[in-house]
Amino acid sequence: AAAEELADLHPADIAELYQDLDLDEAEYLFKLLDEEMQADVLMELDEDDRAKLLSKMDVADIAKQIEHLDSDDAVDIIQELDEDDREKILSHIDDVEQAGDIIDLLKYDEDTAGGLMGTEMIVVNENWSMPECIKQMRMQAEDMDEVYYVYVVDNEDRLRGTLPLKKLITHPSVSKIRHVMETDPVAVKADTPIDDVALDFEKYDLVAMPVVDSIGRLLGRITVDDVMDKVRDSSERDYQLASGLSGDVESDDKLFAQTKARLPWLLIGMVGGICNSVILGRFEGGFVVDPALALFIPLIGGTGGNVGTQSSAIVVQGLANGSLDIKKSTRQLLKELGVGLLNGSIIALLVFLYNFFTLGSGHQVTTIAVSASIFCVVMFASVFGTFVPLTLEKFKIDPAIATGPFISITNDIIGMLIYMSISSWLILSFGLH
Amino acid sequence: AAAEELADLHPADIAELYQDLDLDEAEYLFKLLDEEMQADVLMELDEDDRAKLLSKMDVADIAKQIEHLDSDDAVDIIQELDEDDREKILSHIDDVEQAGDIIDLLKYDEDTAGGLMGTEMIVVNENWSMPECIKQMRMQAEDMDEVYYVYVVDNEDRLRGTLPLKKLITHPSVSKIRHVMETDPVAVKADTPIDDVALDFEKYDLVAMPVVDSIGRLLGRITVDDVMDKVRDSSERDYQLASGLSGDVESDDKLFAQTKARLPWLLIGMVGGICNSVILGRFEGGFVVDPALALFIPLIGGTGGNVGTQSSAIVVQGLANGSLDIKKSTRQLLKELGVGLLNGSIIALLVFLYNFFTLGSGHQVTTIAVSASIFCVVMFASVFGTFVPLTLEKFKIDPAIATGPFISITNDIIGMLIYMSISSWLILSFGLH
Ligand SMILES: [Mg+2]
Ligand SMILES: [Mg+2]
Ligand SMILES: [Mg+2]
Ligand SMILES: [Mg+2]
Ligand SMILES: [Mg+2]
Ligand SMILES: [Mg+2]
Ligand SMILES: [Mg+2]
Ligand SMILES: [Mg+2]
Ligand SMILES: [Mg+2]
Ligand SMILES: [Mg+2]
Ligand SMILES: [Mg+2]
Ligand SMILES: [Mg+2]
Ligand SMILES: [Mg+2]
Repeated sequence: AAAEELADLHPADIAELYQDLDLDEAEYLFKLLDEEMQADVLMELDEDDRAKLLSKMDVADIAKQIEHLDSDDAVDIIQELDEDDREKILSHIDDVEQAGDIIDLLKYDEDTAGGLMGTEMIVVNENWSMPECIKQMRMQAEDMDEVYYVYVVDNEDRLRGTLPLKKLITHPSVSKIRHVMETDPVAVKADTPIDDVALDFEKYDLVAMPVVDSIGRLLGRITVDDVMDKVRDSSERDYQLASGLSGDVESDDKLFAQTKARLPWLLIGMVGGICNSVILGRFEGGFVVDPALALFIPLIGGTGGNVGTQSSAIVVQGLANGSLDIKKSTRQLLKELGVGLLNGSIIALLVFLYNFFTLGSGHQVTTIAVSASIFCVVMFASVFGTFVPLTLEKFKIDPAIATGPFISITNDIIGMLIYMSISSWLILSFGLH
Repeated sequence: AAAEELADLHPADIAELYQDLDLDEAEYLFKLLDEEMQADVLMELDEDDRAKLLSKMDVADIAKQIEHLDSDDAVDIIQELDEDDREKILSHIDDVEQAGDIIDLLKYDEDTAGGLMGTEMIVVNENWSMPECIKQMRMQAEDMDEVYYVYVVDNEDRLRGTLPLKKLITHPSVSKIRHVMETDPVAVKADTPIDDVALDFEKYDLVAMPVVDSIGRLLGRITVDDVMDKVRDSSERDYQLASGLSGDVESDDKLFAQTKARLPWLLIGMVGGICNSVILGRFEGGFVVDPALALFIPLIGGTGGNVGTQSSAIVVQGLANGSLDIKKSTRQLLKELGVGLLNGSIIALLVFLYNFFTLGSGHQVTTIAVSASIFCVVMFASVFGTFVPLTLEKFKIDPAIATGPFISITNDIIGMLIYMSISSWLILSFGLH
């Protein structure tokens, strides 16, 4: 009875059930499912749950699971296994064509179109007639879960067009595929980065996209569900990096995993804080002249951190969604200078007015030093927060690592340097009046 | 010639060209396009570019554009117009059925399934035979851009199943739709929040999803391209909020728009900084006793901010991707206490060792005060950063507003309070040795 009820559920729902089970229960339930369903559930599990279930299976069992999967999913699972196991499992796959496809797909970099594509697709020749096509499609579609497009190639396997399934309804009796197919299909080369593939899916509202080699031969297809997963992964990653989380940490991770993901940035922050104490220590004389100087340390440090975080976030997001062109770096820097000038002036002025009316006499130098420092810190942070991610992008390093803690810690330190330099220069030049 | 070259481009590419043109050029190019293409390009433009082009058209022109759009896009454009114009434009739409659909769709909240759905879909009756179905589908598919599913309803218009187009290839000659359709389709009620709809698309790998009313009657369908746009919007929004950007700011926005989006949090940060100066001012006596106390202000403030940002980011992201259940709040708080205990102890110990060996004698109280404060600040920030977004979620306020500046500014202030309280208590109790 349990088996029947399970069989009615969607694999994704069964995978969800697993989160609350221990390994023995999970294994028991897993064995109640039929093979096709087992493979689908396996694919829907979290990577660590999947690893545990797979560790209970022998090589032949794993190979049987993989035979039921689409080639893109099969590659994902194989990549999670030990190098040694991979070969063994591949040799246990009975369908030589499938094993060959998987071996080919394993060559591609995970973060490229090739790494995301699968080979399950319906392909027809442009010179076939419609009835011939439909016969072929019927055969090819047999094992496929979903079909949204039919790809049309020439005699050299080069992609020539796509045939939306809709055309089968609206143009059933046309002589040749060539005359109903849509030409100039949006396609990508196998080495295109995933981020660009995702932007194309969004721009052209695609549900699937063909992948071609450098001379235009059809290699495979990417489906929108896998693209959505990648988009969520990469925006979660950027968000985590901006929040000072290294590694992929989730709220349901174990205490130890969480600590490991969070400690690195906290330690870097700690070193930054100690640097600040050294800097402030060198100017200790200033605090003796006017202890009120110490009161504005958080204000200056915080403002620099906030401005830098904003500037870098705008650049990182602009680069990620394609709205900011790296070739327009200079324009972006100039604009940031403008924004910094405006924001810096407004904040410096407000702080000046506040200090002027509350600090009282004997603190003129401090009042001026604080506002001048805030202005300089805002200008510096705006430019620095823009410059760093743009530079990283130029050197092909992910700019997302430069947002959040790195920028705010650096700005904090530079902010203290600016504050202390301006204050001591003013004290030396004008005394304390 | 220009007109022909344009006509070969995808509407999304034409819309991209527009970004570099001034309004007159854009208007000129726009008029070269045929009506169908005009409407598609209009839909692909940024909201502000679209508003400018629409402002050059009269009500009848706008109505004509809208007639070429899918109902979901038509609703989006109409919602961007003035209330007064809406009625006039709707009355200019010749196709009464289309106008009626649009009026119905306008009722739904933008952030629900109803607000995202369109009415263009192929619907067949479960009792029809396959040939009857195909005849109907041919008629209905005529005006549609893309068709991926056919929805099957009973005599009362209740959704009973879906028919993947693939089945038309693999089961062409079956007697009744009922026998080939997939039953138990994943569907949503019209008032389901968009975020939940998106999670379902991702979970079940959908390219389209039917929307039903409270008794299961088919109202419309949501397509994956619109869901992807919403997912990107909402993750960009969360990222911006975490980075202290209010409003939807982009790298290509004008200088003034950028300043407006960035100044609010900077001002709140400024007020926070001033609060800190007041708090520190109340304990100025402590700095006189040991000026070295001032050196660690950035360390304490920064650590609190970093920890709080991490904790809140984990909660916000967990709630957004469905991995954190609001019912498990207590468990999450306890886990955060554990993580805080670990991280707090490590950092406090390292700072203690550093200060012990570098500060020298005469600063024992400061050494102890700094490490004790860091520990307390980490514990407080962990719990506070977890508690605030969980509480907001409970009161149905978007927890994303609580990440970033709000949490780090609050933690900064509380951090100073903790540091000053512990220091002065230690100085009072033990003197300075
Ligand atoms: Mg399968
Ligand atoms: Mg699949
Ligand atoms: Mg892969
Ligand atoms: Mg799109
Ligand atoms: Mg669109
Ligand atoms: Mg896939
Ligand atoms: Mg990225
Ligand atoms: Mg259209
Ligand atoms: Mg809408
Ligand atoms: Mg999915
Ligand atoms: Mg999937
Ligand atoms: Mg749409
Ligand atoms: Mg959200």
